[in-house]
Amino acid sequence: MNLAALLTSAGINIAVCVILFSLYSILRKQPSNVNVYFGRRISIATRRSDPFCLDRFVPSASWLLKAWRTKEEDLLAVGGLDSVVFIRMVVFSLRIFSIAAVVCVFIVLPVNYHGQKMHHQHIPLQSLEVFTILNVQEGSKWLWTHCLALYIITFSACVLLYFEYKTITKMRLAHITASSSNPSYFTVVVRAIPWSAEESYSDSVRKFFTKYHASSYLSHQMVYRSGKIQKLMSDAGKVCKILKDASVDQTRKPDLFQCGFCGGATDSFKILSNEMESVRGKSSLIDDGVGGRKKVCAAAFVFFKTRYAAVVTSQVLQSSNPMLWVTDMAPEPNDVYWSNLWIPYGQLWIRKIATLLAAIAFMLVFLIPVTFVQGLTQLEFLQQAFPFLRGLLKKKIISQLVTGYLPSVVLILAFYSVPPVMMLFSTAEGCISRSGRKKSACFKVLYFTIWNVFFVNIFTGSLIRQLSVFSSVKDIPAQLANAVPAQAKFFMTYVLSSGWASLACELMQIYPLLCNYFRRFILLKDGYNDTLTFPYHTEIPRVLLFGFVGFTCSILVPLILPFLLVYFVLAYLIYRNQILNVYIPKYESGGQFWPMMHNTVIVSLILMQIIALGVFGLRRSPIASGFTIPLLIFTLLFNEYCRQRFHPIFRNHVSEILMEMDRKDEQSGRMEEVYEQLHSAYCQSPVTPDDSFNSGHVNHHEDGDSIQDPENVNPGKEPSQVNPTWDVTFDRAESSQK
Amino acid sequence: MNLAALLTSAGINIAVCVILFSLYSILRKQPSNVNVYFGRRISIATRRSDPFCLDRFVPSASWLLKAWRTKEEDLLAVGGLDSVVFIRMVVFSLRIFSIAAVVCVFIVLPVNYHGQKMHHQHIPLQSLEVFTILNVQEGSKWLWTHCLALYIITFSACVLLYFEYKTITKMRLAHITASSSNPSYFTVVVRAIPWSAEESYSDSVRKFFTKYHASSYLSHQMVYRSGKIQKLMSDAGKVCKILKDASVDQTRKPDLFQCGFCGGATDSFKILSNEMESVRGKSSLIDDGVGGRKKVCAAAFVFFKTRYAAVVTSQVLQSSNPMLWVTDMAPEPNDVYWSNLWIPYGQLWIRKIATLLAAIAFMLVFLIPVTFVQGLTQLEFLQQAFPFLRGLLKKKIISQLVTGYLPSVVLILAFYSVPPVMMLFSTAEGCISRSGRKKSACFKVLYFTIWNVFFVNIFTGSLIRQLSVFSSVKDIPAQLANAVPAQAKFFMTYVLSSGWASLACELMQIYPLLCNYFRRFILLKDGYNDTLTFPYHTEIPRVLLFGFVGFTCSILVPLILPFLLVYFVLAYLIYRNQILNVYIPKYESGGQFWPMMHNTVIVSLILMQIIALGVFGLRRSPIASGFTIPLLIFTLLFNEYCRQRFHPIFRNHVSEILMEMDRKDEQSGRMEEVYEQLHSAYCQSPVTPDDSFNSGHVNHHEDGDSIQDPENVNPGKEPSQVNPTWDVTFDRAESSQK
Repeated sequence: MNLAALLTSAGINIAVCVILFSLYSILRKQPSNVNVYFGRRISIATRRSDPFCLDRFVPSASWLLKAWRTKEEDLLAVGGLDSVVFIRMVVFSLRIFSIAAVVCVFIVLPVNYHGQKMHHQHIPLQSLEVFTILNVQEGSKWLWTHCLALYIITFSACVLLYFEYKTITKMRLAHITASSSNPSYFTVVVRAIPWSAEESYSDSVRKFFTKYHASSYLSHQMVYRSGKIQKLMSDAGKVCKILKDASVDQTRKPDLFQCGFCGGATDSFKILSNEMESVRGKSSLIDDGVGGRKKVCAAAFVFFKTRYAAVVTSQVLQSSNPMLWVTDMAPEPNDVYWSNLWIPYGQLWIRKIATLLAAIAFMLVFLIPVTFVQGLTQLEFLQQAFPFLRGLLKKKIISQLVTGYLPSVVLILAFYSVPPVMMLFSTAEGCISRSGRKKSACFKVLYFTIWNVFFVNIFTGSLIRQLSVFSSVKDIPAQLANAVPAQAKFFMTYVLSSGWASLACELMQIYPLLCNYFRRFILLKDGYNDTLTFPYHTEIPRVLLFGFVGFTCSILVPLILPFLLVYFVLAYLIYRNQILNVYIPKYESGGQFWPMMHNTVIVSLILMQIIALGVFGLRRSPIASGFTIPLLIFTLLFNEYCRQRFHPIFRNHVSEILMEMDRKDEQSGRMEEVYEQLHSAYCQSPVTPDDSFNSGHVNHHEDGDSIQDPENVNPGKEPSQVNPTWDVTFDRAESSQK
Repeated sequence: MNLAALLTSAGINIAVCVILFSLYSILRKQPSNVNVYFGRRISIATRRSDPFCLDRFVPSASWLLKAWRTKEEDLLAVGGLDSVVFIRMVVFSLRIFSIAAVVCVFIVLPVNYHGQKMHHQHIPLQSLEVFTILNVQEGSKWLWTHCLALYIITFSACVLLYFEYKTITKMRLAHITASSSNPSYFTVVVRAIPWSAEESYSDSVRKFFTKYHASSYLSHQMVYRSGKIQKLMSDAGKVCKILKDASVDQTRKPDLFQCGFCGGATDSFKILSNEMESVRGKSSLIDDGVGGRKKVCAAAFVFFKTRYAAVVTSQVLQSSNPMLWVTDMAPEPNDVYWSNLWIPYGQLWIRKIATLLAAIAFMLVFLIPVTFVQGLTQLEFLQQAFPFLRGLLKKKIISQLVTGYLPSVVLILAFYSVPPVMMLFSTAEGCISRSGRKKSACFKVLYFTIWNVFFVNIFTGSLIRQLSVFSSVKDIPAQLANAVPAQAKFFMTYVLSSGWASLACELMQIYPLLCNYFRRFILLKDGYNDTLTFPYHTEIPRVLLFGFVGFTCSILVPLILPFLLVYFVLAYLIYRNQILNVYIPKYESGGQFWPMMHNTVIVSLILMQIIALGVFGLRRSPIASGFTIPLLIFTLLFNEYCRQRFHPIFRNHVSEILMEMDRKDEQSGRMEEVYEQLHSAYCQSPVTPDDSFNSGHVNHHEDGDSIQDPENVNPGKEPSQVNPTWDVTFDRAESSQK
């Protein structure tokens, strides 16, 4: 592949992107698509009727401008801290790769290009290899430029990382201070309540906490597991809701989506009181008055009088048997994953190990069945399976299309199955919060992607051969140094095609769009009405993967950097647009995704340095190798320092801050108000445990979080982000379009 | 080497041990040695004059009987929980190796012996190899016996480990409940107090804790760093004490050892008030009234009103900068390592990394200089260096002795230098408690010993060759399976010589004995008067090393097990005797050494299984290999379960128990009494920081803990283990000797 071919490919991709973006700018203006492209907006504002005009069919770039101009404060108000952290990940990548691009294009690229005495062809006809480090001669004196670039990139990355971590830590603390009415700060989840024959779980909890935490204990609420009849009830409720859905006005407000079980609009079922624990007695099965029987679990939410007391109780070892009376801070009410609260605590450690092993196995053997299916899409097999296609397949152009595209379509479809599968693993792991589950899935998808895109492509061959590379530790740098530049072509086209295309898909929301059209024009029903939460577990790994590829390739294959920069610029605009318009933040992790970014960047830097060591070794430049080792040590020390300085804030609550909040509330007399809210904050709807397995279907954006699912949102409560600043930005956006 | 030679060697070693034990039983009855062999007893009881009689020169076994008969409760009262845990380590090893010996000698050994069809010689003339697994044919059907033995050993080890861990957890909790007057439960060490120009550290502490912990804060005490003049003072104090020592009556009581600075017998120096923080002001240098100036450090002891409040404060993150206001539970007053309290908290993480790297480097390159020095002790070099020895060295017997013994003497001396060096590393690491420092040194010595005794002997050759074994991961089992049985001879003689001899040396206390004679008969002064604390950091790694060797060799070389059993029986008796008579427990870690034992046993079991995998692979027995893998998984899961179930108790305090203690004291009105004790509990004597480096000398038993060193014991306080039950056992012992 020469430079001209690469540029042609880039041109085609740019054209495709421009077309898709224009299409998006038209589609978003159609009233029928408002459910798809303005999911967040319709959830908080009444829709206005839009007159039919020609303007609707002219592509415009106003959405880009809008996404560009929105301030971080607005973004924080609209999308929550997590989305700001995500955008900051993109911005960090933009900054560091701008620096890297300048350094590598102006210093490293000329050195590579003139690395060997040869007759240079006309530049566009040059092979791509001429631009990589493979073109530099052994023992070349110019390798110090690579070493210098390594130093500049590492130090700028560390400086940027440090200040980002510092800012995000501050934002997290500010977020905690700002969300002072959050009931989760007063609440502790107690699991593994010991079973006793004499008294109910509820009595045990009351006894334990009045004995040991008398001064701060407020009340508690048991967690129930629904029985068989309850399950039927819940199914009936669902059917009822679907029937109602079909007959509702199209322009209804989102609070009609409320579940009927906890004070919603339907009154055909009696409300299940969540003060069920007032029914006392020795029985662990409680009649809920409708014939269903709920089983009390060995878990409870315990409410405390102050935030500090709750934090203290959650962190101190309660019992002399560490597997009893296990306390943790409760997630936010919207964030609770009820089905997993039922899991006996003693199972958790074994579940964690099992899912970890399963995820690793899935990661390692993923490509085996995929390769097999890809083999099945060969021409001969298709002709045997579908004899009627034989005539068609004999045409040259069709056969080329089939052999060229079908295997990669199979691969892409297989890759789409990964996030739901990982989400399933994370569910089985037993996280009690949705944000925790998403974070855990995010880790798994990240490892999966880096392994299956980066390493598997570098060390092509069977699984055993791939793993055998790692069995000989000291050869790894040299192996990597050989393999990465050799795969330069793959990585560049991967960024061009998969990177840019994934952004266009994200913008177009193809699956919801198709659903919308299907429902509207074929079923003649109301349009697509799922509201989506931001799919951090698919988008963060993608951004991190491109960062990883960027760092490892920057010095070896500097040509990749401009393409990456374009990717990150587009990502910046598109993700901001999506956060502003499409996704609804239903729960917050409070910036917990940043440490993942930090660690991935550090790992990328270290891998970059190890590969550089291998390169300098192969090119016989002991001085450059000698200078790389201190850099490696510096990076590790820097990481350790950040771990000490910032990471505790992401693991624990700071008592100083919580105490200030407590004091302020006590002085202003707001505490009583907060206590009243607490009692109704955690409302458990009757859900079948099987619901947790609904998330395994193809659309990876949903991850089982759709509002239709009764267990997803805390029923009886509106989405928490009803924000006064929002209507202004919405109006501004509309007017700028006209 | 054949069996007869091994038995001869064993016979010689037994004879040596019997002679040394008899010698000990005579020496301990000499009044002049009472300082050496009854250090603990003379520290708590007045000595009686012993009439001269013939009985004193007759060897007796009464001490063995006494050591055997003492109950665990007495041992707990006398030596503290740590010594009981240590004895339990020995007992655990005894139990598991008894089971292993029965299984391996009666099942595995016959299979090995008849493994190949060969003409067996008369048994004593057999080569040792015939008894190892090397004698079993490839593809033999009898390899299932080895697999069975593996199962029996692993399961019994796990069962024993589980019950031991359970018992020791109970003992630890009981120990905490029993030591209710311990001031450390009320105390938190605060480090990294932020410096401010406006107010002193002391004011900052008062302000911070009255602001955030007003209800539970009692008082605080700053930590001082002595200036130059303080240093001179302390040196003068030492000289003064030495002069006094020389003129004191021989039968003085131990409280004469008290340091003169904190209310002892000498009044030539003014008492340094430890309520120095009452002197306030902006200056960080405080005049102590004698001309010395003490610098206030950014560290303080903060006292709380209840134990629970102290635990809570120590565990919760205090400040939004995690590197400020760092709180930890305080060590016991005797356990505080004052010099390290001065270290700025920000340095600690880098110190830890640096000492870790230094320790690893020391471990890896240790043998290089030793081998070099061993080379210097060759005949030719000696003849060149000392020409006058030339005649002597030409005699055959002398030259054999020199070449045979001198190198191993060099090696043994070099090994003796390891514990002090590791102690030095642990001091530099910055532990604030002596028990923590000892535990950290114990870890380092353990890794050092296992690496330099086990792995280096297996993979003989240069450092690079040794490490290259580990660079190819998948070959490790096979490599180990080949190397371990080949070194059977070495391990057996190592257990025989080094194991048994080390116990005899421990019993004889050779270094203190020689010091005693030197002082008494040459300097004509008072006898040896250091009291020693139990050298856990040398003895635990030794016991664990023999356990490690035992597990890894049991199936391959079953003949080693009887020798190991003898070692553990002797260890059981001798260490009990030493705990009863010699060592004074000055501080307690509260059973913190057990998790180390648990982890080492698990690692040994896993290594045993990996080696077995290698063996079954080499002998082509896929069924046996297949059965080993589930065992490996079971062992790992068992370890994880124990980590969940028991380990938290060893890391954190249990709030339940502390609250019960608080409640009891409040009801009985003992709290006021405790508060009064608190103010004088932590008394900082003026010490030079250089003292911490005194521990580097050859006697590895002292580890800088001798009572002469003014920083070692909290001056003004008697050793804490004055125990009423003790005089009874002492009298019983004396009467049984007569």
